[in-house]
Amino acid sequence: MALIVQKFGGTSVGSPEKILNVANRVIEEKARGNDVVVVVSAMGKTTDELVSLAERITSKPSKREMDMLLTTGEQVTISLLTMALLEKGYPAISLTGWQAGMETEAIFGNARIMDIHTNRIANELKEGKIVVVAGFQGATKDGEITTLGRGGSDTTAVALAAGLKAEKCDIYTDVTGVYTTDPRYVKTARKLLSISYDEMLELANLGAGVIHPRAVEFAKNYQIPLEVRSSMEAESGTIIEEEGRMEQNLVVRGIAFEDNITRVTVLGLKNQRASLSTIFTTLANNHLNVDIIIQSRTDRDTTDLSFSIHSKDLNDTLKVLKDNKELLYFDNVQYESNLAKVSIVGSGMVSNPGVAAQMFEVLAEQNIDVKMVSTSEIKVSTVVDEGEMVKAVEALHDAFELAGMPVKS
Amino acid sequence: MALIVQKFGGTSVGSPEKILNVANRVIEEKARGNDVVVVVSAMGKTTDELVSLAERITSKPSKREMDMLLTTGEQVTISLLTMALLEKGYPAISLTGWQAGMETEAIFGNARIMDIHTNRIANELKEGKIVVVAGFQGATKDGEITTLGRGGSDTTAVALAAGLKAEKCDIYTDVTGVYTTDPRYVKTARKLLSISYDEMLELANLGAGVIHPRAVEFAKNYQIPLEVRSSMEAESGTIIEEEGRMEQNLVVRGIAFEDNITRVTVLGLKNQRASLSTIFTTLANNHLNVDIIIQSRTDRDTTDLSFSIHSKDLNDTLKVLKDNKELLYFDNVQYESNLAKVSIVGSGMVSNPGVAAQMFEVLAEQNIDVKMVSTSEIKVSTVVDEGEMVKAVEALHDAFELAGMPVKS
Repeated sequence: MALIVQKFGGTSVGSPEKILNVANRVIEEKARGNDVVVVVSAMGKTTDELVSLAERITSKPSKREMDMLLTTGEQVTISLLTMALLEKGYPAISLTGWQAGMETEAIFGNARIMDIHTNRIANELKEGKIVVVAGFQGATKDGEITTLGRGGSDTTAVALAAGLKAEKCDIYTDVTGVYTTDPRYVKTARKLLSISYDEMLELANLGAGVIHPRAVEFAKNYQIPLEVRSSMEAESGTIIEEEGRMEQNLVVRGIAFEDNITRVTVLGLKNQRASLSTIFTTLANNHLNVDIIIQSRTDRDTTDLSFSIHSKDLNDTLKVLKDNKELLYFDNVQYESNLAKVSIVGSGMVSNPGVAAQMFEVLAEQNIDVKMVSTSEIKVSTVVDEGEMVKAVEALHDAFELAGMPVKS
Repeated sequence: MALIVQKFGGTSVGSPEKILNVANRVIEEKARGNDVVVVVSAMGKTTDELVSLAERITSKPSKREMDMLLTTGEQVTISLLTMALLEKGYPAISLTGWQAGMETEAIFGNARIMDIHTNRIANELKEGKIVVVAGFQGATKDGEITTLGRGGSDTTAVALAAGLKAEKCDIYTDVTGVYTTDPRYVKTARKLLSISYDEMLELANLGAGVIHPRAVEFAKNYQIPLEVRSSMEAESGTIIEEEGRMEQNLVVRGIAFEDNITRVTVLGLKNQRASLSTIFTTLANNHLNVDIIIQSRTDRDTTDLSFSIHSKDLNDTLKVLKDNKELLYFDNVQYESNLAKVSIVGSGMVSNPGVAAQMFEVLAEQNIDVKMVSTSEIKVSTVVDEGEMVKAVEALHDAFELAGMPVKS
C-alpha cells in the first residue's frame, strides 16, 4: 500500500458541487488501495474577498493579522471536503496547518517550512482515514499562525509528500498536464509524458503556470515524483521527476513565451565598479523585476546597458532611473516596447552545444530579428517583436520536432 | 489600572465599517487607562452562510467538521478588528480560541470550558496590547478545535473575565440595556440601572434575548459584574450583579412575554408511575421543548395533563403523541393555540408572598382569562389569549410601578 499526496487548487474547489467532484477523485485513489493525504487551497475567489475586506479597514495591514485572516480560507475548504468524503462513506479528517504539524519560521506572509511533525497525520492514516490538510499555512514553534507565501499549497503538498515519504505527489489543476508549448497558440502542441525538475523549473519561471517553482525545487531536493493532471478529466498527466528515469531525452522539451516585454537601454553609464550593482539594487528596492540583462562596453569609460522588463513596469522604471540619475551616472535612457520573449527549454542542451545556433538559424529563416539573447545550461531565451512571437514559437516547435498528435481542446 | 473584558456580537461587527466603529469603543476604554480584552463573534450573517455551504455538501455534517468550518467566522473578525486597532495607532493582537488558552472538553458543537490558560493573554496585556479573542471557540487538550454551542461568545467573554480576574465584563449589543419590559410594545418601559443575576436568568430564559443565560450563570458563579450596553450609543447600560450590591430592591423588576404559545391537553392518561416521565422523555427525544406543565388528577385511575409548547412545534407534538399512543396509554388529545405567556420577574417576590395574588387581581380587573400558571421563587408566569398579551403587560407594568420616563426609540 503506497501513500499518495494529492493537491487541489482554488479553481478545483470553487463551489460545494466542485468539492463533491474532488471527493470522487480522492476516493478513486483510496479505492486503488492507497493511503491518501489531500492538500487544498481556499475556494475560488475567497482569498481575494478576504483581502478586499482588509482593504476596507487599512491600506497597510499587519502581516501577522493578514495570515490570521487568510488562513481561514483553506480551513473552510478542508472542512467541506471532509464532510463530502464522510457523506460518501469514507472515513476522513480535516487538519489545519498547525494541526498537521507544519512548523514554519516566524516570518508572517512568507514563512519557510522548518520541520514537519508527521505523527498526527501518520496516526490518522493508520486508522484508515483520508487526511485533508489546509495548504499554504503553518505555525511557528510558539503557535503563531503563518502562511507560506508564494506557491503556498503546492509547497505544502510537496513538503508533506517529503515528510511522509509518499510515493508520489499529484498536483490536480485545470489543465491536463505540461505541454510542449501553449496549445491555445500552437495547434500541434502536445502533452509531455514526463519532464525533469530542472526543465519544469525553467518552464515554470517562464510562465507555464501549472505549478509553482518553489514546489518543484522542494520536490527536486527530496526526489518526490510529481504528476500534473486535470481535476476534471481522468486521463493521466505529466510526470515531473529526475532526469535519469525518463523514457526519452529530447534536446528541447518545450517552448515558453510571453508578450508585453519592454527593453530598456541605459546609454553612457560610467564605468565604475559599483555602477551595475547600484542600478539593479535601486530597481529591486523599488520592486521592479528585471529579467534579461546585457552589458556591452562601448569605450574605455562608459558602457551601454540593456535589460528587459514587463511593460507594465515601464513608467515606474523610467521614473526610478530619472530620480537616481545623479547617483547612477549615465547620459540617457532609451526603450523599445511591444516585444516578446521566446525560450526553448531542454536538459538535452547541456550535451548539444549547437542548439542555440539552430534556434537563431530557424528565427533567421523566418526573417525574425533577435533583439536580446540570454542562455542557461538548459534554456535559450530570445527577445523578438511581439507581432512575430507566435510565428517564432511555431517555427521552433516544428524545427525541434515537438509536434505530435493535435491536442483536444 | 483595571482589566475590562468587552464583548461585541455579530451585528456590531457586521461590516468593515462597523468594525472600525467597534475599534473606537475599544479605544475609549483603553484611553481611560484600562487593560482591555475584546471578544468578538462572526460578522453578521457569516455563520449562516457557512452553514448553507455545508448543507450543499451533506444533510448530516460531522460535528467536528462543522466546528472546523464555523470557527473561521470569528477568526476573520479578530483579524479585521485587530487591523482596525493597529490602523488607529493602538498596539493589538488577535488570538484564536486555542491561542487564547480556552481549553474545552472533547464534545464537538457544544463543548464546556474545562480550563483557561491565561498566560498568553496576560503576557500580551503586559506588553500594553489590546487582546482580541475569537468568541464561541476553544480547543481540547489534544488540539482539536471545538465550539461552545449555545451562548458562545457571551460565555467566552464571561469565562475570560473570570479567568483573568477582570473588574467587569461589558456585553455590547444592539439595545441600550435591559428594560422593565419590551419598549416596542409598552411606551412607558424604562431601562433598568441594575438587575440581579437570578432575575436576569429568568428574563433571559423568557426571551429578553440580550445575553445568553449560560453566560449569566457563569458570571453568577464567579461573581463577575456584567454590563449590557449599546455598541452604537455612549449612554451607560444595565449592570447585572449580585443582589446585595444593588441600590433598590423592587418587588417586580421586569415583565417578559412571548406569543405563539399552544396549550396541549392529554386527557385520560392512565395513572401509572412511569407515564409522566415517559410522555416528556418521548417529546424530548424528538427535540420538542415543553415549557409549563400542569397535572390535575380527575379520578383514581386517570389524569388530565396540560403543557405549553411553541406553536411551531404543534404538528410534530401531535404526531409524536399519536405515534406513541399505545405506549403512553391515554384517551384523547386537545389543544388551544393563539396563546401568549406573560411573566413577572423580581427577586423581591421571595419575601412578598402576595405578589402572585396581586398579578391575578390585575389580570381579573382587565377581564383577562388566565389559562395556565407556573411559579418559581422569583417569577410568576401566566398563559393568556394572544390578543390580550399587550393589555396584560401594560396593566402589570403600571400596577407594579415599573413605568418611568419614556425611552427614546
